[in-house]
Amino acid sequence: MTETVAPPHPFDDAVELTPTNGGLYTGRTSANYANMVGPFGGITAATLLRAVQQHPDRLGDPLSLTVNFAGPIAEGSFDISARPVRTNRSTQHWALELTQDGVVATTATAVFGTRRDTWSSDEISIPTVPESDSVAPESFPDFIAWARNYEMRFVEGGIPKTESAEHPNSTSTLWMRDEPPRPLDFPALTAMSDIFFPRVFLRRGQYLPAGTVTLTVYFHADAAALADQAGDAVLGTARAQRFGKGYFDQSAELWGRDGELLATTHQLVYFKD
Amino acid sequence: MTETVAPPHPFDDAVELTPTNGGLYTGRTSANYANMVGPFGGITAATLLRAVQQHPDRLGDPLSLTVNFAGPIAEGSFDISARPVRTNRSTQHWALELTQDGVVATTATAVFGTRRDTWSSDEISIPTVPESDSVAPESFPDFIAWARNYEMRFVEGGIPKTESAEHPNSTSTLWMRDEPPRPLDFPALTAMSDIFFPRVFLRRGQYLPAGTVTLTVYFHADAAALADQAGDAVLGTARAQRFGKGYFDQSAELWGRDGELLATTHQLVYFKD
Repeated sequence: MTETVAPPHPFDDAVELTPTNGGLYTGRTSANYANMVGPFGGITAATLLRAVQQHPDRLGDPLSLTVNFAGPIAEGSFDISARPVRTNRSTQHWALELTQDGVVATTATAVFGTRRDTWSSDEISIPTVPESDSVAPESFPDFIAWARNYEMRFVEGGIPKTESAEHPNSTSTLWMRDEPPRPLDFPALTAMSDIFFPRVFLRRGQYLPAGTVTLTVYFHADAAALADQAGDAVLGTARAQRFGKGYFDQSAELWGRDGELLATTHQLVYFKD
Repeated sequence: MTETVAPPHPFDDAVELTPTNGGLYTGRTSANYANMVGPFGGITAATLLRAVQQHPDRLGDPLSLTVNFAGPIAEGSFDISARPVRTNRSTQHWALELTQDGVVATTATAVFGTRRDTWSSDEISIPTVPESDSVAPESFPDFIAWARNYEMRFVEGGIPKTESAEHPNSTSTLWMRDEPPRPLDFPALTAMSDIFFPRVFLRRGQYLPAGTVTLTVYFHADAAALADQAGDAVLGTARAQRFGKGYFDQSAELWGRDGELLATTHQLVYFKD
């Protein structure tokens, strides 16, 4: 009898890094998570977070992450440097760079830290939506490879189709989960923060050249809260505030099925029309 | 007859930097913009932005800025390094560090770039509020020095008083301007992005140990739009999303008197209770 070992989930394969020395890592782009040009921004952000998580000096769990998409990432290998800039009693600040052949493609800063019980209060609530199972999944066009690794069930603001017209607003709300399902953790939640396709696609009813310039994630859930989600669908809702002069911002919330706010996330996106 | 030269505005004095060489600058904390511990975060953010603005290689105007408050800044001089990490055709990515005696106190990344006319759309509108002149100005307690450099007229969610109780929500909306008035520019708008005192003060009706961990500003206005504002009051509105385990996030919008969305801004804040 031959023992078989399950292959890793495509997500874990995509964010895998090999430590070389002193905060340096090498990784490789994954065809599974390719976008129209270069990799899906969410997988790049998750990979940078993984670099900090694997660092021997890492303190606690992610509190925030900002990723700046400075230039395209070519198919193939890349290097990541992760430097703990300052370590305090309960927080730690990181500076990261992703390079290819010595050229910076992505920069990031992250704050990690420990959490403690305090007074708590939620000021926003999970939107009232149908259960995940009662909403039909939708697919992106085939040329967007990364989207095949997610099950997305749009409650509103679905993927623009060939026949789409301008949409009155830029709000999308959807149930999302890794496909195949995978337990939720910080890298997976980070990637999901970028799952909301550029709001200008929805608003204009068409695909346009567009790409995230900078992405920030604030993590509200701790590791235990993420573990509680297991492989359940996460509810996300995103919208833009202002489009103009080649840029727009978009903000989103990611909710656990139980109504817990897991993360809030913001980005600035360039577009051409 | 003796010619007199007007002293610089306290803001310009506070963000003044002396270039030393190759992207290095020295500055000095300003007693006028002191907070309870160290300087007002907004003045630190504005000073970092000034470093990029003064850099001979700078391309265009600010698109986004993320500032990470890694540790306290002591009274006295500090050094800033501003490094253009990557310059593209229309965008430029910056990495910044503020140090004192070689110890990192603050890190930042910024994206600068040129803008061009495109399709535009606003998806949110300026809140309906009374005119600035019809709202009474409020003052922070004397131990918050920086606040004396701003005229703040709160429409809702004013400054907690000794007798304040818990507030049902964490929203503050206020007209703000530099005191004395000063033409609006990118550094001034950056500082105003941090003018919203920690939302936990309002929500709990008391001052607690709290401080911004990371602040992000997305600039929607270009230089011409800011110049149009002159020294007029800017309307800001801010709120938190979730408080818990020692941290909360807050988001805000800054509007011109004419209803133009000038900036959106987000931060993660630690607190103790």
